[in-house]
Amino acid sequence: MSKKIILTGDRPTGPLHLGHYVGSLQNRVKLQNEYNQFVLIADLQALTDNAEHPEILEKNIYEVTLDYLAVGIDPKISTIFIQSQIPELTELTFYFLNLVTVPRLQRNPTVKNEIKQKNFGTGVPVGFFVYPISQAADITLFKANLVPVGADQQPMIEQTNDIIRKFNKTYKEIFPIVESLIPKDVGRLPGIDGKAKMSKSLGNAIYLSDDADTVQKKVMSMFTDPNHLRVEDPGKIEGNTVFTYLDYFAPNKNEVNEMKEHYQRGGLGDVKVKKYLNEVLQEILTPIRERRKEFAKDKNEIKKILIQGTQKARDFAQKTIKEVRESMKLNYF
Amino acid sequence: MSKKIILTGDRPTGPLHLGHYVGSLQNRVKLQNEYNQFVLIADLQALTDNAEHPEILEKNIYEVTLDYLAVGIDPKISTIFIQSQIPELTELTFYFLNLVTVPRLQRNPTVKNEIKQKNFGTGVPVGFFVYPISQAADITLFKANLVPVGADQQPMIEQTNDIIRKFNKTYKEIFPIVESLIPKDVGRLPGIDGKAKMSKSLGNAIYLSDDADTVQKKVMSMFTDPNHLRVEDPGKIEGNTVFTYLDYFAPNKNEVNEMKEHYQRGGLGDVKVKKYLNEVLQEILTPIRERRKEFAKDKNEIKKILIQGTQKARDFAQKTIKEVRESMKLNYF
Repeated sequence: MSKKIILTGDRPTGPLHLGHYVGSLQNRVKLQNEYNQFVLIADLQALTDNAEHPEILEKNIYEVTLDYLAVGIDPKISTIFIQSQIPELTELTFYFLNLVTVPRLQRNPTVKNEIKQKNFGTGVPVGFFVYPISQAADITLFKANLVPVGADQQPMIEQTNDIIRKFNKTYKEIFPIVESLIPKDVGRLPGIDGKAKMSKSLGNAIYLSDDADTVQKKVMSMFTDPNHLRVEDPGKIEGNTVFTYLDYFAPNKNEVNEMKEHYQRGGLGDVKVKKYLNEVLQEILTPIRERRKEFAKDKNEIKKILIQGTQKARDFAQKTIKEVRESMKLNYF
Repeated sequence: MSKKIILTGDRPTGPLHLGHYVGSLQNRVKLQNEYNQFVLIADLQALTDNAEHPEILEKNIYEVTLDYLAVGIDPKISTIFIQSQIPELTELTFYFLNLVTVPRLQRNPTVKNEIKQKNFGTGVPVGFFVYPISQAADITLFKANLVPVGADQQPMIEQTNDIIRKFNKTYKEIFPIVESLIPKDVGRLPGIDGKAKMSKSLGNAIYLSDDADTVQKKVMSMFTDPNHLRVEDPGKIEGNTVFTYLDYFAPNKNEVNEMKEHYQRGGLGDVKVKKYLNEVLQEILTPIRERRKEFAKDKNEIKKILIQGTQKARDFAQKTIKEVRESMKLNYF
């Protein structure tokens, strides 16, 4: 029996950070052995709220690919490909536009929230408004069975399944229903400033490509307990980002628990805990950084990986779109 | 200097009628000599409010093409092509989605009206809501300079030019601004029931493919002056569909004017006027019907014409989309 298909990916709007590592990258490295994994570099989706700046895409596609390779996504078993080079995605999106109503799209809570957050000045671009439909095309064109998502992305999967059911019923049953894969032990890593989310736009991220000094500086500047002013005072663990990170990354949980107790009863300074976290992170990031440097030496090799992955994805896409056109009786000639 | 480009077309939702003949077909036969004319058979647009019935498209593409050939659109000088066979149209539409905001689209009065008229039950399909954007792609992909439109379609041209300006400014100046061509002496032919518009859905149309008997029956059933009960009574010309048609179609205007006077002062019966109109229409429709029959004999020849036109259009489309991708810096490989 052939492996189940999994679709995952990122917008190439900047290099990837520890939040991506915890939230998805680590997981992909595991999943690629069990599943037929497609990794989409979503440059067209990046344009939906950033149409004026296509010049950032090419550079970031390269950076993101380096990050993928550095963490261990293996292009021999995972298919890494670029969205804009698969025009079949735009074609399938176009067909799906007819299968969703405007009010249904307006009800999508994920999009509602994002529109609020993004604060579009003169109005939401139509491309952004309809991106759940384009995302449904990304998923179905590769006949994905599984999509790893955070809990906040669940409405996108429901929207995708609505479209799949409508297509299958209206034309022909060719798309499998998609399941979301909410990975165990995966949460959302806060930023180094303690804010709920590590993100490029908030300027609170530790990047996989940061050098050792930068990582150390960022760790030493992390948000802890603002009331823990003197070493001998008791400190709080809840909301203390340094300890949150230790929970995520430290391999020796007993040591972390001892430090937590010590910190809470007083006598353990922030600097000491941060130094410990720095060691933990360097342990994880150094081999990633080394591999990244190694891959970065040969830009042509990266290009070759992207061309091959994209070609493989396109072959798949063309087969599906042929089926789609036949189902829709658009194969006149 | 090369000829200016003109884009025009129809949705293949049924055979064409006298309303099309008056409103556009006649005009295209003239325009094809002066311009490089692309004639789009808009099957994808037909799906935007009819996604459940793709099976009607193939048959009607064939019927519409027969109508084109029968009225004298010459496939040697006009490019007749099928929208769905040019996937570059869906790709350009996708890029344009980012250049229009949702409120701007909602302000489009043509779409507003159509949405009201169509009475979509559970909500407007997104494909229908965004069809002005897809129409802009139809126009710009072929770098059309001119689009023949009725006055009610003027907002669509404005929307297209908004998109063109935004694209040219954001990426690169590659698209010409479009002018609408509102043809002289062209109005909107009422239906045989006197309603403002001849249309398939209203069941009040005389088709180019109707046989002589059907035409005669339809003419004899036409709406005249409902108060003109006896031949000797004076009758009204205003709103009298038979006279409206005579104004459009009768070659001898003096004769028509004499009949109008006679009708108004009394003594001229509806049947007599209708018989006259029938003669006038048969004079126009007989040669069209004959040519249509001739062309209909060889379905393969029609297919060949469509394949060749579509291939020519696609070659043009692929050149434009290459330029588009370069302008948007999406040409990574």
